[in-house]
Amino acid sequence: MVSKKDIKLISSLKQRKFRDINKSFVVEGKKSISEFLDSKFNLIKLFSIDCSFYTDISNQIQVNSDELKKISFFKNPDDHLAIFEIPKQKPINESILIVALESIRDPGNLGTIIRTCEWFGVNDIICSNDSVDCFNPKVVQSAMGSLSRINITYVDLNSYLKSTELKSIGMTLNGQSLYEKKLSFEKGILIFGNEANGISDRLFSMLNHNLTIPRSLNSDFPESLNLSVSVGVVLGEIKRKTYL
Amino acid sequence: MVSKKDIKLISSLKQRKFRDINKSFVVEGKKSISEFLDSKFNLIKLFSIDCSFYTDISNQIQVNSDELKKISFFKNPDDHLAIFEIPKQKPINESILIVALESIRDPGNLGTIIRTCEWFGVNDIICSNDSVDCFNPKVVQSAMGSLSRINITYVDLNSYLKSTELKSIGMTLNGQSLYEKKLSFEKGILIFGNEANGISDRLFSMLNHNLTIPRSLNSDFPESLNLSVSVGVVLGEIKRKTYL
Repeated sequence: MVSKKDIKLISSLKQRKFRDINKSFVVEGKKSISEFLDSKFNLIKLFSIDCSFYTDISNQIQVNSDELKKISFFKNPDDHLAIFEIPKQKPINESILIVALESIRDPGNLGTIIRTCEWFGVNDIICSNDSVDCFNPKVVQSAMGSLSRINITYVDLNSYLKSTELKSIGMTLNGQSLYEKKLSFEKGILIFGNEANGISDRLFSMLNHNLTIPRSLNSDFPESLNLSVSVGVVLGEIKRKTYL
Repeated sequence: MVSKKDIKLISSLKQRKFRDINKSFVVEGKKSISEFLDSKFNLIKLFSIDCSFYTDISNQIQVNSDELKKISFFKNPDDHLAIFEIPKQKPINESILIVALESIRDPGNLGTIIRTCEWFGVNDIICSNDSVDCFNPKVVQSAMGSLSRINITYVDLNSYLKSTELKSIGMTLNGQSLYEKKLSFEKGILIFGNEANGISDRLFSMLNHNLTIPRSLNSDFPESLNLSVSVGVVLGEIKRKTYL
């Protein structure tokens, strides 16, 4: 059975403020929960319709489908909902390529970018402090299990760029062609700006390189690509070299 | 002023059934409406807070912000909402690369794919008949103005593949590497399957080629890429050659 206290707690975890206070976040669905367990995230509580699926879990609570519907953030909840502890920050690994995001707002975009980074072997994502929280339920949902394996760090991006010795490559709408530029991408910081405004002037002035995904020659439209698609195209181009 | 009849009509256009009956769909926001007007879509009615923005439009109706809020599909409506006529089907141009989508379900994905196709110079998208409707409000929103310039055709995909002489290239999770395969992509049909299930067995058996976006060598995860990101990565790789 779900207690009133649990209902209140879970509902509060929709908001970043309460995720920060409680140092916890919600994961829904069998597949994602299994991946967070495999990645050694600390499970606080698990609510299951079918308690026989996860064995050896002490803090598992049996619920019925009405109760699960009450606590779920989804319209059609899967059979399980878990509360996990937000882990302590891990150090950033600067020896391989890092993706940095400035002022990213859309949780679906961030989730998709996390999944895309993992696909192409990027382990670290750096977000500016004003970006959407990676434990936002919509990020958790669209990142699928990848959120459990990618290290995401929130920083003052300007200060970080000043302090690091890594080269920074910014993606903008009027840089050199991504395809012409022969850069070594084995390490460095690949920076993508906000969905609507791109990279800020202040960050732009600190870039070592400024690259663009070329658009079809026949058209002035569209004015931009979706942010998560851009990340995919650039990582695809960078990683292509490692497969050839 | 907005009439009750207009409110009822606009609200009904959220549903495909009524879009089909009325042969019309809704576009919101100054920028998108301008692009549909530029693309010679037939405007049925325009509701504007500021009627001085669009001039020379006879069927424009002045509304206040409360009225716009009532008819808008958005939480925060822009200053304009338009009803356009769904245009007649145009023939498919088989002389350049075509993107085909089987059973695509997510309107946000379809919208993003339309925008991505235009960026990379693809003019025709073919959707299987059971795919989400391209005049769905969420598709219109995420495609931005690109929907006004890309030709989208709904067909029985199996029959179409049987009848055409074009080569078909399917994207799957266990084909040849996209980067190794030296195909001519100047024309042909590039096929992407459903978000959850990929390309169906029946369609798979008709493919001329079966390609995969290679994943990082260090990981078995994630199991797949987001569909619109996949389209971006593949079109980026194909179009790269034209920029070099």
